[in-house]
Amino acid sequence: MPYVNIRVTREGVSREQKAELIQGVTNLLVDVLGKNPSTTVVVIDEVETDNWGIAGESVTVRRQRRQ
Amino acid sequence: MPYVNIRVTREGVSREQKAELIQGVTNLLVDVLGKNPSTTVVVIDEVETDNWGIAGESVTVRRQRRQ
Amino acid sequence: MPYVNIRVTREGVSREQKAELIQGVTNLLVDVLGKNPSTTVVVIDEVETDNWGIAGESVTVRRQRRQ
Amino acid sequence: MPYVNIRVTREGVSREQKAELIQGVTNLLVDVLGKNPSTTVVVIDEVETDNWGIAGESVTVRRQRRQ
Amino acid sequence: MPYVNIRVTREGVSREQKAELIQGVTNLLVDVLGKNPSTTVVVIDEVETDNWGIAGESVTVRRQRRQ
Amino acid sequence: MPYVNIRVTREGVSREQKAELIQGVTNLLVDVLGKNPSTTVVVIDEVETDNWGIAGESVTVRRQRRQ
Repeated sequence: MPYVNIRVTREGVSREQKAELIQGVTNLLVDVLGKNPSTTVVVIDEVETDNWGIAGESVTVRRQRRQ
Repeated sequence: MPYVNIRVTREGVSREQKAELIQGVTNLLVDVLGKNPSTTVVVIDEVETDNWGIAGESVTVRRQRRQ
Repeated sequence: MPYVNIRVTREGVSREQKAELIQGVTNLLVDVLGKNPSTTVVVIDEVETDNWGIAGESVTVRRQRRQ
Repeated sequence: MPYVNIRVTREGVSREQKAELIQGVTNLLVDVLGKNPSTTVVVIDEVETDNWGIAGESVTVRRQRRQ
Repeated sequence: MPYVNIRVTREGVSREQKAELIQGVTNLLVDVLGKNPSTTVVVIDEVETDNWGIAGESVTVRRQRRQ
Repeated sequence: MPYVNIRVTREGVSREQKAELIQGVTNLLVDVLGKNPSTTVVVIDEVETDNWGIAGESVTVRRQRRQ
């Protein structure tokens, strides 16, 4: 019955990678907590880099400075 | 003062259906808990089917198999 | 498959009221969107009044002023 | 190490305003709680006005009535 | 920079199990998406069984019926 | 109408500090986005250090190693 919300920046996550995240997190909850996979929900949110801040600045600015 | 977040897959929810969800949840909180509707917030998130997993696989894959 | 998160202040919500919220929200999603109730998840969070702010002040302060 | 999620309606928030929100919230957590800014995360979600309800109706309807 | 929120019912999750979840999810994000573990945040919420609903009823009621 | 959720570890945040966070975030949304403070909601979640992970380990373990 767990609910897992994965939030990452929107930077080209593929359908295959999303499938790997969903399967990996579900397996982890089955293995560690013995949860029932059939009611385990995983939701991935992709967030624009302008909307994600760390250390007081957006990821957009952070990425630009590193180039 | 409640805050309610409804998360569903993005599969053609109409403006009318969203209005019904907002009104229905607000009425429920007024009826059951006596909450003030004027400060009751309802936010609906629509999530791509690739990004929603259940039972270890995405809703996209699940929908395809059932066709 | 929906996930609904209801957040309210912790002010004596009874087990019966929680059951009514869970049933009411689930029925709403079945009625309005045709969702499958068996995978509809509702999670209620009760938040201390010191930790809930509206209009720039906590609910604790707001409640005291109204007495 | 804090995580802050700011949810607002999608009504033309500029990149500059987002940067101000990220910096302002991060500074607040440093000033009030002495948190380390380098691990302080701020995520801004912009929500369509059809999907945001208050007082039992959507912000779309509310905005139209006020014109 | 990802943020992951794991929500489960409060039913005796041990400190060791929490550590396994934190490590497992962090490794998954490093392996699948190449994320930097040092800014990967995992937050586990444990929710009372009265407050978690599935299929229109609380987990408390569901557990009792199965005994 | 904004909703802001501040999540921090439960490590002795005082009522006064919570009030400062609520007021500070509300003022920021008024100043930067011109939001109406009377419908601005701020919710603070305090999370046990065992339940908060960063860099693949819990804050509990992290704090112990630094002593």
